[in-house]
Amino acid sequence: MRLQLDCLPCILRQVLEISRKATSKQEVQEKIMKEAIEILRNFKNYKTPPELAKEVHGLVKLYTGNPDPYKEIKKQSIKKAKGLYNFLKKFLNQQKDKLYWALKISAIGNVLDYGVYSRVELEKDIEKELKKDFALCNLKDFKELLERAKKILIIGDNAGETVFDKILLEELNIKEKFYAVRGAPIINDATLEDAYDSGLHECSYIISTGCSLPGIDFKECTQEFLEIFNKADVIISKGQGNYESLSEIKKDNLFFLLKIKCPVIAGHIGIDINNYVFKKQV
Amino acid sequence: MRLQLDCLPCILRQVLEISRKATSKQEVQEKIMKEAIEILRNFKNYKTPPELAKEVHGLVKLYTGNPDPYKEIKKQSIKKAKGLYNFLKKFLNQQKDKLYWALKISAIGNVLDYGVYSRVELEKDIEKELKKDFALCNLKDFKELLERAKKILIIGDNAGETVFDKILLEELNIKEKFYAVRGAPIINDATLEDAYDSGLHECSYIISTGCSLPGIDFKECTQEFLEIFNKADVIISKGQGNYESLSEIKKDNLFFLLKIKCPVIAGHIGIDINNYVFKKQV
Repeated sequence: MRLQLDCLPCILRQVLEISRKATSKQEVQEKIMKEAIEILRNFKNYKTPPELAKEVHGLVKLYTGNPDPYKEIKKQSIKKAKGLYNFLKKFLNQQKDKLYWALKISAIGNVLDYGVYSRVELEKDIEKELKKDFALCNLKDFKELLERAKKILIIGDNAGETVFDKILLEELNIKEKFYAVRGAPIINDATLEDAYDSGLHECSYIISTGCSLPGIDFKECTQEFLEIFNKADVIISKGQGNYESLSEIKKDNLFFLLKIKCPVIAGHIGIDINNYVFKKQV
Repeated sequence: MRLQLDCLPCILRQVLEISRKATSKQEVQEKIMKEAIEILRNFKNYKTPPELAKEVHGLVKLYTGNPDPYKEIKKQSIKKAKGLYNFLKKFLNQQKDKLYWALKISAIGNVLDYGVYSRVELEKDIEKELKKDFALCNLKDFKELLERAKKILIIGDNAGETVFDKILLEELNIKEKFYAVRGAPIINDATLEDAYDSGLHECSYIISTGCSLPGIDFKECTQEFLEIFNKADVIISKGQGNYESLSEIKKDNLFFLLKIKCPVIAGHIGIDINNYVFKKQV
């Protein structure tokens, strides 16, 4: 998906949020915003939103010296999500179409704000989100591909969500399962460390995309990732950042699993904001 | 209230929204965004959010030739609000503390999205908003001042809201009542034409602040406005833009009436977002 004008204020808002996580020094936050505006001047040079986001977020590292402002938040998210694991497994085991609900669990992992809530509150929130059906769900196509699939790749998104993805992976009866994460910390996206923390090594091979943007840039990817990406029988791309990066490529074994949280993506997919989507790439 | 870093992405988002109202030409929208970013580079030169907003919104006029992109929307809002007048009057007449509820009616005028709703839906929305009490309400101080007041000034905010303000003005038993509006179109803020359309001349003297920013800048104000501002016994400043402009001045007969819709203002007032406030300036 090409960078839209709407992405500019959104990325500027995001970098301010990250700056404040990375430093309490207002003069540094201000410096980062000033430099971010300088980068925005050349927005036409960036193809996708994650490409511009990477450049802008790089300023936070540069000026605060903090390479991972979300480190603590990511740890907490994973811890809280792990606390929900049994609850989610129990729910899943009560369902008839377990695959549908495993996908739904994986999709809602992306929307929870783990920060300030107790487990009881989180469970309530989850139940509310679980009740919403997918607004678009290409489950039949997925099941067909799955029948003869030997290799699946999930491209992860946020830390915490990783635990929900583990439940999906455990549900998939496939020989080789790969779980790809960012090559370096960016916002609250999962890295190798976060994936291991979430226990994903217990049910899949964890790999790095090699990318340090909140999405995928094939020029940055490792050879290993590219090979698995090309050879996998089925690929699930999680979240908005990966969608933004991959929505234009032709690949009929690629599925997008996300909650739509942004009006630009809503317009691009043709489904209203706040809906869940499991969409086959055409 | 001084311009905060949070205001930068917010103003950039707003100018995109206005650009799209003013023109369907994407290359013009893009030009406006490019120039808006140029203005943002010098954000340190602007004291308050409305001052920066004015400069940025000026680009829309400049590049689209449309001096009033919200003209039609403002007209519709006033029409819809007028359709609610009898409903609101009836509600008010059923209340014991009519002044409290007239203030509340005036405050909620600011939050309705008149655009796509039917009258029945709007009435439902209003009832919901009316039920919420003020989170902060300096009504006692206001009543004390009101007892011996001969001259009151309300500084208006949006078109449509103007009709709700009329109900407040009608409730005030004061000799001279003034209603001030922007000196030129800016966003959906009320101008002289909108104030007359709303029938405010039937219960007050309508004046212009002389300002073309979404707030007040004393350097831009007409002599007439300044005199009334200085001589009024009580002043009510409506909405966020006026608050941003006036929150730092010392004036103990000034009251702010608004719904808090922005986290920066919430922090400044010390009341959570989404709450209603009727606050005496100290």
